[in-house]
Amino acid sequence: MNKKEILSDVLRHVDVTTFDARPLITAYGDMAFQARNLSRATDILNRMLADRECSVILTLAGSLCSAGLKDALALMIETNMVDAIVSTGANIVDQDFFEGMGFRHYKGAPHQVDDQKLRELGIDRIYDTYIDEDELRECDMAIAEIAGTLEPRAYSSREFIQAMGAWLDKRGLGCEHSLVHAAYKKDVPIFCPAFSDCSAGFGLVHHQWHNEKYLTIDSVADFRELTRIKIEAGETGIFMIGGGVPKNFTQDVVVATDILGEEKPMHKYALQITVADERDGALSGSTLQEACSWGKVDTVYEQMVWAEATLVLPLMISDAWHTGDWKKRAARQYNKLLATSGAKA
Amino acid sequence: MNKKEILSDVLRHVDVTTFDARPLITAYGDMAFQARNLSRATDILNRMLADRECSVILTLAGSLCSAGLKDALALMIETNMVDAIVSTGANIVDQDFFEGMGFRHYKGAPHQVDDQKLRELGIDRIYDTYIDEDELRECDMAIAEIAGTLEPRAYSSREFIQAMGAWLDKRGLGCEHSLVHAAYKKDVPIFCPAFSDCSAGFGLVHHQWHNEKYLTIDSVADFRELTRIKIEAGETGIFMIGGGVPKNFTQDVVVATDILGEEKPMHKYALQITVADERDGALSGSTLQEACSWGKVDTVYEQMVWAEATLVLPLMISDAWHTGDWKKRAARQYNKLLATSGAKA
Amino acid sequence: MNKKEILSDVLRHVDVTTFDARPLITAYGDMAFQARNLSRATDILNRMLADRECSVILTLAGSLCSAGLKDALALMIETNMVDAIVSTGANIVDQDFFEGMGFRHYKGAPHQVDDQKLRELGIDRIYDTYIDEDELRECDMAIAEIAGTLEPRAYSSREFIQAMGAWLDKRGLGCEHSLVHAAYKKDVPIFCPAFSDCSAGFGLVHHQWHNEKYLTIDSVADFRELTRIKIEAGETGIFMIGGGVPKNFTQDVVVATDILGEEKPMHKYALQITVADERDGALSGSTLQEACSWGKVDTVYEQMVWAEATLVLPLMISDAWHTGDWKKRAARQYNKLLATSGAKA
Amino acid sequence: MNKKEILSDVLRHVDVTTFDARPLITAYGDMAFQARNLSRATDILNRMLADRECSVILTLAGSLCSAGLKDALALMIETNMVDAIVSTGANIVDQDFFEGMGFRHYKGAPHQVDDQKLRELGIDRIYDTYIDEDELRECDMAIAEIAGTLEPRAYSSREFIQAMGAWLDKRGLGCEHSLVHAAYKKDVPIFCPAFSDCSAGFGLVHHQWHNEKYLTIDSVADFRELTRIKIEAGETGIFMIGGGVPKNFTQDVVVATDILGEEKPMHKYALQITVADERDGALSGSTLQEACSWGKVDTVYEQMVWAEATLVLPLMISDAWHTGDWKKRAARQYNKLLATSGAKA
Repeated sequence: MNKKEILSDVLRHVDVTTFDARPLITAYGDMAFQARNLSRATDILNRMLADRECSVILTLAGSLCSAGLKDALALMIETNMVDAIVSTGANIVDQDFFEGMGFRHYKGAPHQVDDQKLRELGIDRIYDTYIDEDELRECDMAIAEIAGTLEPRAYSSREFIQAMGAWLDKRGLGCEHSLVHAAYKKDVPIFCPAFSDCSAGFGLVHHQWHNEKYLTIDSVADFRELTRIKIEAGETGIFMIGGGVPKNFTQDVVVATDILGEEKPMHKYALQITVADERDGALSGSTLQEACSWGKVDTVYEQMVWAEATLVLPLMISDAWHTGDWKKRAARQYNKLLATSGAKA
Repeated sequence: MNKKEILSDVLRHVDVTTFDARPLITAYGDMAFQARNLSRATDILNRMLADRECSVILTLAGSLCSAGLKDALALMIETNMVDAIVSTGANIVDQDFFEGMGFRHYKGAPHQVDDQKLRELGIDRIYDTYIDEDELRECDMAIAEIAGTLEPRAYSSREFIQAMGAWLDKRGLGCEHSLVHAAYKKDVPIFCPAFSDCSAGFGLVHHQWHNEKYLTIDSVADFRELTRIKIEAGETGIFMIGGGVPKNFTQDVVVATDILGEEKPMHKYALQITVADERDGALSGSTLQEACSWGKVDTVYEQMVWAEATLVLPLMISDAWHTGDWKKRAARQYNKLLATSGAKA
Repeated sequence: MNKKEILSDVLRHVDVTTFDARPLITAYGDMAFQARNLSRATDILNRMLADRECSVILTLAGSLCSAGLKDALALMIETNMVDAIVSTGANIVDQDFFEGMGFRHYKGAPHQVDDQKLRELGIDRIYDTYIDEDELRECDMAIAEIAGTLEPRAYSSREFIQAMGAWLDKRGLGCEHSLVHAAYKKDVPIFCPAFSDCSAGFGLVHHQWHNEKYLTIDSVADFRELTRIKIEAGETGIFMIGGGVPKNFTQDVVVATDILGEEKPMHKYALQITVADERDGALSGSTLQEACSWGKVDTVYEQMVWAEATLVLPLMISDAWHTGDWKKRAARQYNKLLATSGAKA
Repeated sequence: MNKKEILSDVLRHVDVTTFDARPLITAYGDMAFQARNLSRATDILNRMLADRECSVILTLAGSLCSAGLKDALALMIETNMVDAIVSTGANIVDQDFFEGMGFRHYKGAPHQVDDQKLRELGIDRIYDTYIDEDELRECDMAIAEIAGTLEPRAYSSREFIQAMGAWLDKRGLGCEHSLVHAAYKKDVPIFCPAFSDCSAGFGLVHHQWHNEKYLTIDSVADFRELTRIKIEAGETGIFMIGGGVPKNFTQDVVVATDILGEEKPMHKYALQITVADERDGALSGSTLQEACSWGKVDTVYEQMVWAEATLVLPLMISDAWHTGDWKKRAARQYNKLLATSGAKA
């Protein structure tokens, strides 16, 4: 097979408005194990969306936007279900922004083509998904291009991602739904605490390498800005897809308010979809009870679902969309808050 | 139990020089499953250490330095087994630097004390390990203090961690072995690509919040500096404990050299200890063959070991220490390289 | 809480005919990871049901019938979707037959009540599910009672389970759907290769202990009878929920035909829902490619789905039920075949 | 590669007496996570061996005897560390008895040779291990041969396995250590509750198919005999490698004594090495606390270790062997007890 043949079967994103998962989720609530956990998690999600006092923070880790979940996640932004996002870089840049530029992911399979051959053909693989490496290089360079248009100072990743949204908006969006673009339009902040750890890193290193005066990405600013949101928001709920840095970073923000003498309550609602185990002591699989010992998460409304995200996230968002509590939620537009202030609130 | 009683059983770090794991590792090589994988991985580790052309990068994710592995990891720095480290922030700041300040971790158990009660007592829990939260706050403030002594400009996390090592050295090291301190003494760079995602974040947000002029942590600089090391080193091997940002970040550096027009070979050796599964498509559990499709890792000398790190890492390092190939390795002192140059090599 | 309060929230079984999973499964087919695997597995399930030449064997391991899947599995028998079942004993006796007697499972939670206290109250726990131990003892004794009515000779587990179905039928079924009862009515054989490893073991040991002349359960007969079905059926497909003995036993039957000089083709279709990993070398997580090396499973139509069964099995059966290929399947009634012959076919 | 080349690298079994794991296990006791769990489990193992009142039951699931653990497990029998064994059939027949006949396992790799090609060559694969299928057929036929020499009545699997030991003893043992042979010499009972689910099944179906009068394997007898041992033993400890039928069967025996009106205490000590997760509700990964709710396992001395067995079992047995509490243990020779009685004790 040549490259064109290998990259022929386009991956498509699920549209959770086309089916109503509510009867399923309700029935699952009377069963056992992860079915019941999924049902309870969805119930808490709806409760969180119905709570007028609560700001919702979504965290993303794992290859979600390349796996067909991009449109479902973008829908959450578009319909005011989410007020801030903390993500790995790959989801935001290599996957969402990449499709926003008009590129696509392709269906493949783990052992279909030898990885050495894929390398020679310039095809990158994520488990069962293929990417055209040339297109990914264009994505890297778009980041360098955007960096070149900005004043050479320190930025939070959020500020830079906002600029990426503006760039997409000006250029014309190359796909139907995009987190980066929707967040730009809705003033929803997106943070990538390890922003260099993705396609953005390539573009930004290129930018710094080739410019005497260059911008920097201040990772402290990310944490400071999310802390400011927590101070402003008061009540918060977190919906975590996967673990990793986004999970830890978002939980930590409660402690940060305390350290700044602006103590705020623990996250009132906490949901996590994960396949990680708690028995290796790593943060990704740590229980939400453990997070309570750190003063980060309250344990009244918390639920973990042990599942690979593609299987259950569409069901949860479909239920929440059809239930409709998002219709009464105000757009908090935290980008506006962050734009009008310096380091200190 | 009161706080003092709960925090009474001090966790101790394994000293891998006190037993010789070589007969065990050799015997495991003739067995099957993960025993054989462990033996093969150790063989590759020794091969990598014996390869005079090869620089070794160690990546750390998961709670390793709080779990009794701190001294074994520090030994790798002290004996020139490792030339650069990429880590999650918690390992470096909350755990290693924390013990370097003289604080300790304590043995606990998952369901021994209710997490709400731990919270009230100011005890933080990592699975079966306890931490005195008041001491952790002192650690946060030490970071703020160090930040206050530095010129307000953009730093890589590596630069800041070097300053932490100097601070420990000046103050007097509060434990026998420390990664941060050993790396300072040996000029081994340590990078935390998500540096705000740990105790450092608390200290640095405090620093920025309370100072009009403040330093920033440029995450692009981290990636640029590691890329410079790759350009300088040429041949490299990576020893990955866990996955997460450190795994991805370190693999990406090969691609970065290409983007800067300084193309260097893929990582020649690649080892990973992980409990992650490949079937969720996330980076942590992705195979090293998959990394080959991205042009990051060569597949001749690669091995994954499916195990929780505390069980197998002491065996691997004990074998390598007793085998002794580290005795002929030169100290590369990459901190010196990075000190003498600007953004561009 | 007293026993009655703890056992108050009845677990209910999902009815997969009340929602149509087809749009979801179709959308999942264009995504990645386990969503796509689930979609492909469902496609193979439908293909297998539409193949007039193919007999379908269902294997069950894990606590499925206590977890809300009983009615969905019984539906497969009632609608001719399945021609033989191989199961762990617990699913058939402690869970399905138990509910057939009119008893129920109750919703609980892992750490809601201390297990020592549950023990004192006579409540047995399966993760998040509670059982009244007194009722389970009645179930054990019903087995002893049935054994007492049978002629004292060697039985296959299938024969005994058929007698359990007759007993339920005579007594009046105490729940809406039951695998044991439906299999009795439809002449579908159910095998438990480790029949003593469940409530049946208690009843049958009681029977042997208290009777001079007693029946025995010949586990060789189970294997011989399933082999006869394979010889008769020719083409077969296997739908495996979990791994364990049922998976191995059913795969082995292909080899058995060869050993008897009646060589039959490998299982043409093979599906498995499992959370097991292949890296421990155990059979439960072994790939279906590995099974091909043993001559057991063909690799054209095989798919594993990495998920906890309660999450995905209702979706698969709902899709298959609504697709409707079962309407054209003949009832093979293999119990009749097995009734009319001796050891040899 | 031809068959001979593929089957050239012989797998060897670890000899745990050649290294002393005690310093390692002691050091692990002061660490965290699974290292500490392993240390505590080994401590309980030693405590159990030093308890003169306690009979030890070993349970085996997963491919252990083909993976290099055969000699370590046989050592436990040879040195009176274990008084009864409950196992999957494959460990006992396809792997241990098979090597006892003089055959060997070979080192391979998961994707080294295509599984279709392995099939054509008559090579069976267990993850990274190869078996000559022709030799496995000889093993099947040896079972048929042994069955042919026995009086045609109902046997427990234990009785049949004892006959296998006698057959090996008469023929001359074809390897250095064998569980089946050592158990025969030491009168240690071995039970396979699903005895047809392995090579024995092939041989025994062949036996029944070709003989008008044939023996049967009564799985109720297995459970009854193990219950008799529990009644005789009183205090018991269980050391479980993997889960599956052997775990459940052995735990259930406590309940069985109660049902027979001969109530005996719960298992006093309970250890399990497993990679299974509790969150699917299956027995294999269920906690030992959960087993307490069923009245099966006491919770004072219980410990699970989350690890693949080849990595940790040699360390535990090495520690126990060097600690030497086995030297004072009497051989209980439960085969003698079972030989001298009918169904009832």
